[in-house]
Amino acid sequence: MGPNAAVIKRLTVYLQFLRQLPPEPSHISATTIAKSIGYGDVQVRKDLASVSGEGKPKTGYEIENLKKALENYLGFNSPKKAVIVGAGKLGTALLGFDEFSHWGLEIAAAFDIKKRTQNYDKPIYPMSKFKEFCDKENIRIAIITVPAASAQQVCDLVCESGIKAIWSFAPTHLYVPDGITVQYENMAASLATISCSID
Amino acid sequence: MGPNAAVIKRLTVYLQFLRQLPPEPSHISATTIAKSIGYGDVQVRKDLASVSGEGKPKTGYEIENLKKALENYLGFNSPKKAVIVGAGKLGTALLGFDEFSHWGLEIAAAFDIKKRTQNYDKPIYPMSKFKEFCDKENIRIAIITVPAASAQQVCDLVCESGIKAIWSFAPTHLYVPDGITVQYENMAASLATISCSID
Repeated sequence: MGPNAAVIKRLTVYLQFLRQLPPEPSHISATTIAKSIGYGDVQVRKDLASVSGEGKPKTGYEIENLKKALENYLGFNSPKKAVIVGAGKLGTALLGFDEFSHWGLEIAAAFDIKKRTQNYDKPIYPMSKFKEFCDKENIRIAIITVPAASAQQVCDLVCESGIKAIWSFAPTHLYVPDGITVQYENMAASLATISCSID
Repeated sequence: MGPNAAVIKRLTVYLQFLRQLPPEPSHISATTIAKSIGYGDVQVRKDLASVSGEGKPKTGYEIENLKKALENYLGFNSPKKAVIVGAGKLGTALLGFDEFSHWGLEIAAAFDIKKRTQNYDKPIYPMSKFKEFCDKENIRIAIITVPAASAQQVCDLVCESGIKAIWSFAPTHLYVPDGITVQYENMAASLATISCSID
């Protein structure tokens, strides 16, 4: 059992921030981090202390070490293999997205019921090969990018194939057996919030 | 001032659910909706009543009318124009994403500092044309998909060009003047949460 979702999110935000800093200066204080990302000072100190101990008085944390400590803590040094189910526009875009490996995931392949053109260096297999592939490669994470109407059916198959965590972009609720985690990425809700935020 | 973000999100989820239903049956009860999407019965009744009045006893809501009422309420019948800033992989993927218009946004163009290949039927313009384009087309929504390191600089330019709402995919905090809304889409935090959810 790892840290909870709120902690993971904050630690990820610190890491995002640190990764974008220029090579110099080499040190940064918790206060500067807090101000830069808009979090409370006490929260940042507490989070960082739990991952990397206290910063040095005056100089603060050595940035490279703090990044490594965060990456270790979050398990990003040994990315976990994941598959994409649904190689339509969104699935294909994700297949070409280089960022996964920086955040703990490595996309091994995509799957689709239709024959799809392969655009990137990752294979796209037919759904009939899904279970066999996941067994062989010990895959336990699936990213579902199929339409809402077929999402539950795909989800059932995914759950029967040994997957333990699902990241779903399908705009619908998914029913899963106990012990399987689903995280929803609701782009539509974000879109709606933006479009409703101006008159 | 429209409904708050939590209400908008729930209404969007109802609409997502209703849109994926088959053409028959023509009616649905609030209870069925609540069960299908995993929300509380009372919450769903209250939300739908505020948008479309009470459902009829026994038969519930006429689905097509309920969809129209939700679309009207959320303003999705008159999509608002938006632009994408940053035509890299993510920006280009979003440019080709057909779903925007279903959720109240219409992408008018993308902008980039580099010369980019146009893959879709939407134009990609140089950043130097940004303000002029937004003025002329009365654009008030921008989607920022540039790297974190250049996000604040882009954000400043965007804010000076009359934009009122920003949807940011850049993994960093953005400072904006009063009266401008920023919504963050933190894919990295989602990725990290998924990768940390299995041992």
